[in-house]
Amino acid sequence: MAENDSLAQFLSSAVDAAKKAGQIIRKGFYETKHVEHKSQVDLVTETDKACEDLIFNDLKQLYPTHKFIGEETTAANGVTELTDDHTWIVDPLDGTTNFVHGFPFVCVSIGLTIGKIPTVGVVYNPIIDELFTGIRGGGAFLNGNPIKVSSKNELVKSLLATEVGVKRDNLTVDATTGRINRLLFKVRSIRMSGSCALNLCGIACGRIDLFYELGFGGPWDVAGGAVIVTEAGGCVYDPSGKEFGITSQRVAASNPLLKDAFVEVLRDSE
Amino acid sequence: MAENDSLAQFLSSAVDAAKKAGQIIRKGFYETKHVEHKSQVDLVTETDKACEDLIFNDLKQLYPTHKFIGEETTAANGVTELTDDHTWIVDPLDGTTNFVHGFPFVCVSIGLTIGKIPTVGVVYNPIIDELFTGIRGGGAFLNGNPIKVSSKNELVKSLLATEVGVKRDNLTVDATTGRINRLLFKVRSIRMSGSCALNLCGIACGRIDLFYELGFGGPWDVAGGAVIVTEAGGCVYDPSGKEFGITSQRVAASNPLLKDAFVEVLRDSE
Repeated sequence: MAENDSLAQFLSSAVDAAKKAGQIIRKGFYETKHVEHKSQVDLVTETDKACEDLIFNDLKQLYPTHKFIGEETTAANGVTELTDDHTWIVDPLDGTTNFVHGFPFVCVSIGLTIGKIPTVGVVYNPIIDELFTGIRGGGAFLNGNPIKVSSKNELVKSLLATEVGVKRDNLTVDATTGRINRLLFKVRSIRMSGSCALNLCGIACGRIDLFYELGFGGPWDVAGGAVIVTEAGGCVYDPSGKEFGITSQRVAASNPLLKDAFVEVLRDSE
Repeated sequence: MAENDSLAQFLSSAVDAAKKAGQIIRKGFYETKHVEHKSQVDLVTETDKACEDLIFNDLKQLYPTHKFIGEETTAANGVTELTDDHTWIVDPLDGTTNFVHGFPFVCVSIGLTIGKIPTVGVVYNPIIDELFTGIRGGGAFLNGNPIKVSSKNELVKSLLATEVGVKRDNLTVDATTGRINRLLFKVRSIRMSGSCALNLCGIACGRIDLFYELGFGGPWDVAGGAVIVTEAGGCVYDPSGKEFGITSQRVAASNPLLKDAFVEVLRDSE
């Protein structure tokens, strides 16, 4: 098949792949509670692998010259360098812990970078059937309806999402809870959903006003959501306020009105 | 209408009322983003009041001899003492902050105590259409299907739900984040959804394994969920391990296998 370089076509292909992967996730989601722990681990691995294979196969067939970065293949083969080429960055199953526990915040995240810039994004939660999409210059959508970030302009009225991550050494845990302690005096409340990609989409549709996470898995957690946030009128940035680096494992997001104040309290919370 | 004292009839009446209230919540939920902050406050108050009026009117008509405790009327008239009489305890809108922000964890919670014991419970999330029900001695259900607590028996594999509450004095915030800090070394991860009643239902259907909250609003946050948890095979207790007091504003819940270990780490985290 000839490569179709229209962004709308890329998005359509990504949506098709995400929906197919979503069916596999949905099936596993309702099975995982009924199997023993050992089989649960296998079910996660199998679901993750099956979804990544499906997405990569579909997209590679359509776009054979594009590059691919996936959580599963990267875990197996080591980090793949991000180049200026068209690159699909895929998290076949974001929210693995939620998946195992049956907590309904799981998703497929597919992002396409062109010149290292997140350009097409799809984040699909197959459990509550929410499909977030974004195309650079073409807007952001939830199940086909346009979305935009919240209009909050005061931290004290803002809902913050963050996560406690997976590292459990003293230094990391103390830094994590110390940061939450100081932020609690500044924001309205805190939510933890367990999915980085869905937190970004929460910013995009204005359900949450502030999000930061440090030390998450890799670019696959943010590649899809980043363009959805920016197309919804939001900002994605390094928690220091510097430019967002897709491979840096550090991310903050909000509407533009809250950015400076958020960066300031994040700095004060270090 | 003659009073029908069958528990199944009480449940059916509560479900009807919760579903009607759910329609009001659903309507407000999708409106709140489109109104200014001042009108948002009004919308919350109006929704809360309309739902409580509806539920109380329906149930009082059916059960004129029963007593009623509601978040809205209590806020207006002061605390109502819980007696041995049949008492309906209602939170017309749990997750007010989520409601305002459009974060989809909001619910109606209706509990009936008889002899101060939570006996019938209904928790309905009208946004993702999940109806949790429980009757003492009659099981617990999600949308009509039987549910049970998780079978986890190790803290380290357990997902913990808690909330940061609304108090922002130094003592409370330090205690809150200190507890989270120490718990992070013991459990798999933490979720914060912003609804006490839905956290209890999360325990009941095994989505989460551990839940505690201190200093929440009142008995209306727990009256519906408590019987749903126990009927799903779980335990509801004071975080100290002592007996659960429905008016104490302190709650912990888990399956029976995790209770002792959870109480121990909660004690060590004080």
